[in-house]
Amino acid sequence: MIYSDLYRVLAYHFEDEQLLITALTHRSVGTPNNERLEFLGDALLNCIMAKVLFERFSDAREGELTRLRANLVKRDALVKIAYQLELGKYLLLGSGELKTGGEQRTSILSDSVEAVIGAIYLDSDIQTCQSVVVKLWDKLLRNLPQQMKDPKTRLQEYLQSQQKSLPAYKIFKVKGSPHSQLFEVKCTIPGLKKPTYGNGGTRRSAEQSAAEKALGILNVK
Amino acid sequence: MIYSDLYRVLAYHFEDEQLLITALTHRSVGTPNNERLEFLGDALLNCIMAKVLFERFSDAREGELTRLRANLVKRDALVKIAYQLELGKYLLLGSGELKTGGEQRTSILSDSVEAVIGAIYLDSDIQTCQSVVVKLWDKLLRNLPQQMKDPKTRLQEYLQSQQKSLPAYKIFKVKGSPHSQLFEVKCTIPGLKKPTYGNGGTRRSAEQSAAEKALGILNVK
Repeated sequence: MIYSDLYRVLAYHFEDEQLLITALTHRSVGTPNNERLEFLGDALLNCIMAKVLFERFSDAREGELTRLRANLVKRDALVKIAYQLELGKYLLLGSGELKTGGEQRTSILSDSVEAVIGAIYLDSDIQTCQSVVVKLWDKLLRNLPQQMKDPKTRLQEYLQSQQKSLPAYKIFKVKGSPHSQLFEVKCTIPGLKKPTYGNGGTRRSAEQSAAEKALGILNVK
Repeated sequence: MIYSDLYRVLAYHFEDEQLLITALTHRSVGTPNNERLEFLGDALLNCIMAKVLFERFSDAREGELTRLRANLVKRDALVKIAYQLELGKYLLLGSGELKTGGEQRTSILSDSVEAVIGAIYLDSDIQTCQSVVVKLWDKLLRNLPQQMKDPKTRLQEYLQSQQKSLPAYKIFKVKGSPHSQLFEVKCTIPGLKKPTYGNGGTRRSAEQSAAEKALGILNVK
């Protein structure tokens, strides 16, 4: 049983092993290869993570959910899963890729993880696919609460780590009727050319929104 | 029944109408609004379209599937669906957005379509959500075969429409053993700075791949 170890770590056994083989076949081998399955698996993974995050973080804003998901589906995360599955040793590569150590290339590894997800879906159904993915991502998902600090906290911690001055928040505008106000807050960071602005129904949420934008400009993930 | 027309066109009736109301609530109103549902709906829509395209176009390459999906989920397409549903008249907008005609803004309309998709999923299940989406997108999906011309044909038609010279394809390299060759083809377009290259198990598929890349550089959708 060439794939028995893989099935064990996946906690999934393929009915149609040919699907798994296609998922492990790099385009350097010819056709069929795993490119179409990768397309499918990428979409499934994004959707599964969106559903899981939406449920687990019922207070998180859309920007926060987007950021958390990006961290779960980025290449680094996929490569971790590939290592967990020891996927490199099952890959089918053309001779050119084999000579140049293609089985260690992170792009090939991460694409294959997506292709395997697509293959599991085709071999079973969306619920099964989701439960396999959630199990595989267990460790990464359990790390998320640490990433859930609010934007103001993350901005402050980042600036402190860079030995930079802290941001100043100031109410810039208040719109709307007294019982439904919309606050616009300006966030100024010494050393950053332009201030950022954020809106919200409360002063606090407007500040968080402005901080989120500053994190974006500073490219802090 | 304020939503009876909408339910008819959607061919779906909400169990929990509050979910629909949230999906129709722009952030200018305050919280809760439709931003989280939009995040969820966007992921669902991408996944549903990936599944549908994967099934319907069993010969299409990954690049082709990606291109077709982009056309189905881009803002223009979502706005068409919003018009079909007459979504503008159901939207809940803050007074500022109302004054400036926010219900006609394409970004607000297209975001709301995604939010409604997210809400349908939460109100039912993935299968129901998929069948509602596939029905709504029926016309756009039926137009797809026209978009399915192969990359070489599309490149040629594009260059002709621009009164430009046609591309030249040339075999650049052949790798692999005689029974499993990998062709690399170079595609030169007069007026384009650099040639593009494509790989494939046959000369024809390598040419298509090189043409696809040229279409990307020329930004032809």
